[in-house]
Amino acid sequence: MTDLRAPLASDAEVAALRHRIRRGEHTAHTSGLAAGRVQGNLVVLPEAQAFDFLRFCQRNPRPCPLLAVSEPGSPRVPLLGADIDLRTDLPGYRVWRDGELAEERADIGALWRDDLVAFVLGCSFSFEEALLQSGIALRHVACGANVAMYRTSIPTVAAGPFAGPMVVSMRPLKPADAIRAVQITSRFPGVHGAPVHIGLPQAIGIADLARPDFGDPVPVLDDELPVFWACGVTPQSVVMASRPPFCITHSPGAMLVTDLLNDRLAAF
Amino acid sequence: MTDLRAPLASDAEVAALRHRIRRGEHTAHTSGLAAGRVQGNLVVLPEAQAFDFLRFCQRNPRPCPLLAVSEPGSPRVPLLGADIDLRTDLPGYRVWRDGELAEERADIGALWRDDLVAFVLGCSFSFEEALLQSGIALRHVACGANVAMYRTSIPTVAAGPFAGPMVVSMRPLKPADAIRAVQITSRFPGVHGAPVHIGLPQAIGIADLARPDFGDPVPVLDDELPVFWACGVTPQSVVMASRPPFCITHSPGAMLVTDLLNDRLAAF
Repeated sequence: MTDLRAPLASDAEVAALRHRIRRGEHTAHTSGLAAGRVQGNLVVLPEAQAFDFLRFCQRNPRPCPLLAVSEPGSPRVPLLGADIDLRTDLPGYRVWRDGELAEERADIGALWRDDLVAFVLGCSFSFEEALLQSGIALRHVACGANVAMYRTSIPTVAAGPFAGPMVVSMRPLKPADAIRAVQITSRFPGVHGAPVHIGLPQAIGIADLARPDFGDPVPVLDDELPVFWACGVTPQSVVMASRPPFCITHSPGAMLVTDLLNDRLAAF
Repeated sequence: MTDLRAPLASDAEVAALRHRIRRGEHTAHTSGLAAGRVQGNLVVLPEAQAFDFLRFCQRNPRPCPLLAVSEPGSPRVPLLGADIDLRTDLPGYRVWRDGELAEERADIGALWRDDLVAFVLGCSFSFEEALLQSGIALRHVACGANVAMYRTSIPTVAAGPFAGPMVVSMRPLKPADAIRAVQITSRFPGVHGAPVHIGLPQAIGIADLARPDFGDPVPVLDDELPVFWACGVTPQSVVMASRPPFCITHSPGAMLVTDLLNDRLAAF
């Protein structure tokens, strides 16, 4: 049997990984790296949109679990790691202008401005690690595929210009594992928390599980239920729909690796 | 034995109570009213300070558990109750100018402005109800006293001008009840969550339990431990220390009664 418990990455290993990323020596995704450490989604907005976006996150904690918000103009989030510099410490960035993808970059030092505010949001890597450590197999991980993601009919709660449907990720699980997964992920409200739906995709506006809106299709077997969690694609989709003049996000899968231990996010 | 389980207040009873408050017919505190419903602290700030304060709350969820943030200029928080009007629906308000108490009022309709943002924060009534329902007696409740509150040496995480020490509330509990209280209040991260400290007041800068900084002294018996929770006085104390030009809060104990069920705040 595969050993699902990777040893916890040491402080030195986390720092070394982040420094390799900073020097441009690691430009790929961060999935499976820095075991036991929280990884985060990045959204950077001008201060003119930042208060609206922060209210949006406060109202929608399941899809938008905030780990940290920088001071305006600061690329630092000291609670997630004393040395983190958000301008260089992610493997890749996407730059958006008026809601359209303008370019991908390896660092954003040249684009940083005094009015930018950075938001770091929790991602599903944290709760997936907790599920794997409990012996719950995740098919997309086993297949090396992206998780399947869907736009739903579940509305978010609007704030300022930010509004739109919730995006969810789906993992097929046997009923007993689905129950256990509710228990396990309920411990982690800071990284999406408990599922938002189980078992009836039509009830949340998903017509065909075989055709995800993002990611890869993952088969659901006859003895399994599809289990749906709120997804960090939601804030990105909501922000772009509002067409802000300027925005920066991480490139898909290229997350911020923080010092924070996943276990520290457990509510109990 | 006293029946500690008050029947859940019905929707109609909650609406009727809020309407009595709105008409000025109930001007006293709200402790013990609207059983099973979430009550909230109120902080109203101009938009110029609101983004800083929202970041402060995001960084300090234990003392500042945000239930809702209004749109700028709106006195409504529809997620807490469709008909709530924050200008009239609390029994009493305090108006602060440059961080000094300027006046107490029964409503704030005449003071409302297009740039005001309202913050509703969870309060300990919610988790105290859960403790009482589990058969854990709370001495200050039994005595009809205010809970004892202390300034500590625990720092909060600053945001903009907002910084300062955490204020905690203390409840004396037998060790077995203290353990159970950790379990019970961990379910409610939205209303202060688990204790921040148990047993050693000196370790958090409290020199004399008999002399609280706020509220009433409550004796700790020889077979009890003092158990400390982050307290909603923290945000008020931090805001006033920054001397904002204008601020409105609830009067002590005169909370916003919401439609929300306490049980809805349970993370699991």
